[in-house]
Amino acid sequence: MSTYESSCRPNAVTVREVGLRDGLQSLPVVLPTQTKLDWIDAAYAAGQREIEVGSFVPARLLPQLADTGELVAHAVQLPDLAVSVLVPNLKGAELALASGAHLMLVPLSASHAHSLANLRKTPQEVVAMVAQMRAARDAAGSPMLIEGGVGTAFGCTLQGEVRQDDVLGLMQALLDAGADRVSLADTVGYADPASVRRLLEAARRIAGDRLCCAHFHDTRGLGLANVLAALETGVARFDACLAGIGGCPHAPGASGNVSTEDLVFMLESMGIDTGVDIRQLLALREAAGRWLPDQPLHGALWRAGLPKTFRARAATPA
Amino acid sequence: MSTYESSCRPNAVTVREVGLRDGLQSLPVVLPTQTKLDWIDAAYAAGQREIEVGSFVPARLLPQLADTGELVAHAVQLPDLAVSVLVPNLKGAELALASGAHLMLVPLSASHAHSLANLRKTPQEVVAMVAQMRAARDAAGSPMLIEGGVGTAFGCTLQGEVRQDDVLGLMQALLDAGADRVSLADTVGYADPASVRRLLEAARRIAGDRLCCAHFHDTRGLGLANVLAALETGVARFDACLAGIGGCPHAPGASGNVSTEDLVFMLESMGIDTGVDIRQLLALREAAGRWLPDQPLHGALWRAGLPKTFRARAATPA
Repeated sequence: MSTYESSCRPNAVTVREVGLRDGLQSLPVVLPTQTKLDWIDAAYAAGQREIEVGSFVPARLLPQLADTGELVAHAVQLPDLAVSVLVPNLKGAELALASGAHLMLVPLSASHAHSLANLRKTPQEVVAMVAQMRAARDAAGSPMLIEGGVGTAFGCTLQGEVRQDDVLGLMQALLDAGADRVSLADTVGYADPASVRRLLEAARRIAGDRLCCAHFHDTRGLGLANVLAALETGVARFDACLAGIGGCPHAPGASGNVSTEDLVFMLESMGIDTGVDIRQLLALREAAGRWLPDQPLHGALWRAGLPKTFRARAATPA
Repeated sequence: MSTYESSCRPNAVTVREVGLRDGLQSLPVVLPTQTKLDWIDAAYAAGQREIEVGSFVPARLLPQLADTGELVAHAVQLPDLAVSVLVPNLKGAELALASGAHLMLVPLSASHAHSLANLRKTPQEVVAMVAQMRAARDAAGSPMLIEGGVGTAFGCTLQGEVRQDDVLGLMQALLDAGADRVSLADTVGYADPASVRRLLEAARRIAGDRLCCAHFHDTRGLGLANVLAALETGVARFDACLAGIGGCPHAPGASGNVSTEDLVFMLESMGIDTGVDIRQLLALREAAGRWLPDQPLHGALWRAGLPKTFRARAATPA
């Protein structure tokens, strides 16, 4: 019996690079702005067409991302590149609107405890804030998209279990408040393929194609298996970090997001088009090793190399 | 749309420990026999009920596995433990029959080039040898099972592409020659979830439940995603190595088989019964770090620990 044929597995998938934001914010080093610009340019040259370049947060909180405005200004000049930024509050949203980025991601934590600890707001307060951001966006006549990202969607290191109904209710509330899209994130690496399937199928029934992205950490090795389970529910966009950078400062060596190069490799091997030239991506991965010499890098493909049987695809023409 | 419900995903899965054979044979150290006995006992205590304890090959070729006979003699005393050994030739099969092991795995490489390089036989010569082993088994009145393991089933580092028709034809030939069961192995880490699905569905149409096991290496990070794809075709037995030991001596740091503890974690998280107590397994993984202090160990769970949301299962009572 075959289920592949009957599934809604997409033929093309977008891998959104979030290493410059989710990856770098977890590392104790500050990458020079020029290096980040080189990263953006190399990712673009390799065919990546969606990049989260940073976050509009106070520089005293995250000095690693203090140059986000400069990065946006450069990235929006690259044709057809969708440039996104994370914004945690209204001040950040104003900066994002002024920056010219194409999308702002507003994180909401479905875990009440995590929400208070990380965002200093209840989930409901974040929903109310998104309504204000939507009003500001519309008042400015800006085409910028607003994505509501529901984090700790599969559980939380503080509160443990996060109820699926809570996740779905908050996702619906974000849409009602004016978010153009929503995404679901396994912030702490608690998801497994069965929980991914359950939650994403239920989420798609509510949000349809406005459920735009899934974000998996590889903390416990299940990152790519979780992507596979999500693919089968029709998700066609995934966040990933070059070299799997990031992770938790309290778990030395623990991986961050799924690694961009391993994810692209899996998808392209399966015949799913990512538009990315894996060889150029592996060259960029090598550069990351030079840029971050003392940081733990992850992923498997860079070490083993491509199989002899791998069919190269040309990078998306610039 | 849901495909999980309509799939043939099993409710219970057997994880066959092959670290004592596939793992140790790739390492440049010889583990003391007593340590191996401790490993077998601890795996058994944790609930593992199938263990490949070694290989009947000349000690000059694989000194790491020279004590296989002693290990079988001990392991067969553990109630309900299925003890398997690998045998590459008739001499090995004789030793296996005399040892009292429950199953012998005969490897066949679907890649002609790999078969000659590794086994010094063509695939057809291996098939003929299996017929002789079957005759010897029957003549001895032994209940020992014969498993034909088709390796390089997803491609080969020497010859590149391996045709699916060749794999399926050789699998059929092994069954015709008298193998009780067959299994498929991604010996070099070339498989992806789509190729796994394609080959295993086709193999099941031929072999039915005699297709008993899938064997994945995690060389390029796709090990668990490949397991997930195989699960969906109804495979309910997987080989795995404690701490993912093994790998290729020519690719330093490259992982071996999927790690037993990460695989058990994924399956149990999904609600699939493995009979294994993950906490005892993690304690055994710690022991492996002491036994193999200078060897690269793999896997992610041991580092990050179990999620707060993980529901413990009791080990299968001994």
